[in-house]
Amino acid sequence: EIVTALSLLAVPGQLKGKQVLITAGPTYEPIDPVRFIGNRSSGKMGFALAQAAQEAGAEVILIAGPVSLPTPTGVQRVNVETAQQMLDAVTAEANHSDIFISCAAVADYSPAKVEANKIKKTTHDKLILELEPTTDIVSSVTSQPDLTLFVVGFAAETRHIADYAREKMQRKKLDMIAANQVGEGQGFAVDDNALQVFWTGGEQLLPLAPKSQLARDLMTLIIERFYAKNSTENS
Amino acid sequence: EIVTALSLLAVPGQLKGKQVLITAGPTYEPIDPVRFIGNRSSGKMGFALAQAAQEAGAEVILIAGPVSLPTPTGVQRVNVETAQQMLDAVTAEANHSDIFISCAAVADYSPAKVEANKIKKTTHDKLILELEPTTDIVSSVTSQPDLTLFVVGFAAETRHIADYAREKMQRKKLDMIAANQVGEGQGFAVDDNALQVFWTGGEQLLPLAPKSQLARDLMTLIIERFYAKNSTENS
Repeated sequence: EIVTALSLLAVPGQLKGKQVLITAGPTYEPIDPVRFIGNRSSGKMGFALAQAAQEAGAEVILIAGPVSLPTPTGVQRVNVETAQQMLDAVTAEANHSDIFISCAAVADYSPAKVEANKIKKTTHDKLILELEPTTDIVSSVTSQPDLTLFVVGFAAETRHIADYAREKMQRKKLDMIAANQVGEGQGFAVDDNALQVFWTGGEQLLPLAPKSQLARDLMTLIIERFYAKNSTENS
Repeated sequence: EIVTALSLLAVPGQLKGKQVLITAGPTYEPIDPVRFIGNRSSGKMGFALAQAAQEAGAEVILIAGPVSLPTPTGVQRVNVETAQQMLDAVTAEANHSDIFISCAAVADYSPAKVEANKIKKTTHDKLILELEPTTDIVSSVTSQPDLTLFVVGFAAETRHIADYAREKMQRKKLDMIAANQVGEGQGFAVDDNALQVFWTGGEQLLPLAPKSQLARDLMTLIIERFYAKNSTENS
């Protein structure tokens, strides 16, 4: 109760009147009616960010992949499963949002062909699965010149974190990127995490903390850079 | 409370002194540190069977794939992730079990090569994934002549349920098979289900019911056939 109250004081209604669009969780790309390609995103960070944005006074739309997490109070949730469904949901909301936080671990690849019936083991010795790249959701938003919302991306990397993150920020035309290391008890499906946050002209390390606290710290940074960008553009 | 009490009366300690080995849930087969091939098993049926067997007085070993379900009271749970890990766990317990219920949706195929680092999208246009068959867990048990435990398999099919189930029962040398249809709001990740149960010389339909009730009905059938088989073999 005390922690919640303090965080409310830290960001007192700074996002009142703003719409924040957040994606969270994994996507599942079907191979056949029972099998799919998934990833290890728990959705916890995206859900914590949705709660932090709602506490800061925003209207929050949370587009969630398949996760078993309760919806934060006051947040509007849209459930999706595939990368394509997530893209469609983001496209429908992006043009009336002020901030887009792309926190979902969207599948980069999906099977080129979805089998209508379960692939039976007895009919194949080896199985060759052909995967095609999915449409990049965050780039589909930043590549539209009429969309001026503040866009935050995530990078979950197993190595060369800072280099990959800065390159990704530029290539995808992000306003900010939050990078974390995965694969060594950090990142996916755990409660604690640390983030290296980069933006044009700055960076900040958010040290290891519970995802709920980390989300509030990151939201404070996002709010700061969001207003800094808008005051620059309007001056 | 009343339902639990009634079901306890239905199978009052009939499995006292017996060990029941049950697998439940999906397996995840890693593609790289973040991606995997999974399937839509919720684990609910296997967990409900574990509870029903425990209520019937058995020592229950539940080998569970990645699911977010609480362990039934009095049940010993072993968590695994891949088909190979599940095979190893079953092998370790099969020779001192009396009944083996193979309820897990074990991956039939797993990637031939697991990438040590996350496959990056920019380095590939298309991705070809080569999958190899996994070792069949239930056949690894039934093919050992010194193992005489009662083996129950499951068949989750999208079509031709009875034919596939009977063929699978014979090919895998099962004592019993429980078949259900998946893909039309039934089977995976739902609470209600119906089963067609087959054994040599008999069959029974267990109509649509909550999985907890269905598990008790199936356990009653298993107990009946388990003692029928053992009295035949000992006479």
